[in-house]
Amino acid sequence: MMGDLGLATPFSFQVEGRCSGTSARLGRLQCGHGEIRTPVFMPVGTVGSVKAVTFEQVWDTGARLILGNTYHLYLRPGHRLIEELGGLHKFASWEGALLTDSAGFQVFSLSDLNRITDDGVEFRSHLDGSRHFFSPELSMEIQLALGSDIVMAFDQCAPYGADEKEVARAVDRTTDWLRRCREVLPGRLTRNGWERALFGIMQGGVFPELRRRSAEMITELDLPGYAIGGLSVGEPSEALYEVTALAAQLLPDDRPRYLMGVGFPDDILEAVTAGVDMFDCVLPTRMARTGTVLTRDGRLVVKNLAYAADTAPLDAGCGCPVCRRHSRAYIRHLFQAREMLGPTLATIHNLHFYQELMAGIREAIAEDRFAAFADRAISRWREGERVRIDQNGRSRS
Amino acid sequence: MMGDLGLATPFSFQVEGRCSGTSARLGRLQCGHGEIRTPVFMPVGTVGSVKAVTFEQVWDTGARLILGNTYHLYLRPGHRLIEELGGLHKFASWEGALLTDSAGFQVFSLSDLNRITDDGVEFRSHLDGSRHFFSPELSMEIQLALGSDIVMAFDQCAPYGADEKEVARAVDRTTDWLRRCREVLPGRLTRNGWERALFGIMQGGVFPELRRRSAEMITELDLPGYAIGGLSVGEPSEALYEVTALAAQLLPDDRPRYLMGVGFPDDILEAVTAGVDMFDCVLPTRMARTGTVLTRDGRLVVKNLAYAADTAPLDAGCGCPVCRRHSRAYIRHLFQAREMLGPTLATIHNLHFYQELMAGIREAIAEDRFAAFADRAISRWREGERVRIDQNGRSRS
Repeated sequence: MMGDLGLATPFSFQVEGRCSGTSARLGRLQCGHGEIRTPVFMPVGTVGSVKAVTFEQVWDTGARLILGNTYHLYLRPGHRLIEELGGLHKFASWEGALLTDSAGFQVFSLSDLNRITDDGVEFRSHLDGSRHFFSPELSMEIQLALGSDIVMAFDQCAPYGADEKEVARAVDRTTDWLRRCREVLPGRLTRNGWERALFGIMQGGVFPELRRRSAEMITELDLPGYAIGGLSVGEPSEALYEVTALAAQLLPDDRPRYLMGVGFPDDILEAVTAGVDMFDCVLPTRMARTGTVLTRDGRLVVKNLAYAADTAPLDAGCGCPVCRRHSRAYIRHLFQAREMLGPTLATIHNLHFYQELMAGIREAIAEDRFAAFADRAISRWREGERVRIDQNGRSRS
Repeated sequence: MMGDLGLATPFSFQVEGRCSGTSARLGRLQCGHGEIRTPVFMPVGTVGSVKAVTFEQVWDTGARLILGNTYHLYLRPGHRLIEELGGLHKFASWEGALLTDSAGFQVFSLSDLNRITDDGVEFRSHLDGSRHFFSPELSMEIQLALGSDIVMAFDQCAPYGADEKEVARAVDRTTDWLRRCREVLPGRLTRNGWERALFGIMQGGVFPELRRRSAEMITELDLPGYAIGGLSVGEPSEALYEVTALAAQLLPDDRPRYLMGVGFPDDILEAVTAGVDMFDCVLPTRMARTGTVLTRDGRLVVKNLAYAADTAPLDAGCGCPVCRRHSRAYIRHLFQAREMLGPTLATIHNLHFYQELMAGIREAIAEDRFAAFADRAISRWREGERVRIDQNGRSRS
């Protein structure tokens, strides 16, 4: 094996197919914990668990790459403990690949009283108010300790609504921090004969010039992959789509493009159209826990009274084990009775839904019918959302 | 098929082996949803869900007979809805056999302001305070609507500490109600070509004479099975064991004996020794949700700090999927982080633990080494409980 000779197998990405009518592409990521076909959606396993399901159930949805949150794992149980116990894969017993975020987003969004300097970010834990200081260097140390296959650079994400000057400062700081992240890593990215990848993150908010500047600066470092950050933070859909389309074009064609924190099925279809390869979002797991499931025809609030005697599956077109086995009436009952099985079944379905969506996207690109596929799927989703909102409005009156 | 000729295959029970040194026996229950080997432990699926796990996970523990709670299902979602949707097996997608309790125990223990007359029990729902009236007839109607394989008679369980006169009244009323239950059923016990069974319940508290009187009266009805009620309501272990031993002797040898609501592993071993065949208890599922797991060496409070870096499985001797895959440290972390997966993994382990205990008991009886098996297992459990309590005591000081 390469590892035995002291040479690590490099992390790699190949584009294996393209849509003739859009920028969508089919790809293959190769990393130490398997081969990942793109476009890919990563379920979020915040603190070493994809909420409400077992890793066996996650695996059975077809997911082979999940996301772990550095901020949460640093606070609890602590990256040193996880390292001591063999890394996050072993600790959580996850056999697939793992990407960890950098904590950049969470130290701003979740913690109190954060203070940003060029050195890093001081913040208080959302758990107990204790004081902490995160730097690019610490983010790397934590992610190395966790044993991630894909390590994300520590970035500053300016809030939506920030003015151009503030966003420009975040772009420059993110670039500076990316260089510091990179300096921590030489010789330390190899694990079990495989090289792990550091992805840079583009910032720039909704300002095209800043997106350009960010792209130029980060791509200069010739990294194995790039993420589009600073979106899905409250901007309208049009802004999300426009900036995504621009950002994807600005990133190199031969590297994976990861749109962080996005999103709804139609958002994902739009972003794939623009040439994005990787996605993560808490949406399928978070919505499931409150009784909302995804269908090809939009969201369905299964805990509503309307489904009390409904023998149909959550989504008639779905082949997941929940839809093969259970009725809306049963799942609605579980939510009414506050049984944990309600969130569990809704989560299994929602995770399957996303994996089936991505499998459908890949197949459509492979057969060069993605443009029509995306049009139909987007229309059906949006029409369903419109009708269901009307129905729910009526059922309330 | 027999069903096609209008003849139902009867519910049956055969004793297939006996322990030469104790009253333990090996048996086989045959019902419309499969063949159940006894001694058997039934996981409790209160409102159409064994809490915190999927029915697939329940099935994988080896359980083929579960208990559903008539009281809970009557209140939510309602037995008529479940009947309309095809019965509880179909509603919950459970392919094994199902026993439902009669609601007798819950209307006294869970509801407020219950008032007992010879007719039945008036009570207020623990969910919303609404008024309801349960009679033997209604209990039968509900259990028939649910489609249970084993229907329990509606009984009155006197509280522990009740005087002899009060317990005697409960015995007589239970007998009277059992006769009324039976009158509802002629011609209605057949379902899909199979006969369902009505089990009578013995009461009598800790009074040997009342146990005798209860046994005489209920066995006169020649029912397919009998339960020992009125135990596991707060009495000391010695009383539980003494009354169980007496009660088992008073029940016919060729019918299954079911000790309701018991219990800890040592209690089950003692009761099997006395000739009991069937058990149910919320203990494995309820304890799991608060972070306590069962091991051959007693209970283990896995959420304790002592296990924060413990790489051992929950129970070194256990072959369950949780013990094969996860460390105490990981499961402890899940409880600390309040992840639903903590209760789920602990429940899977605890349910496996009980199924493995029963499989061990059956194997030991089959090989006529049960007396020694029970001695060893009881000693090990009790010694473990003693040591762990000491350790927990020390670790608190």
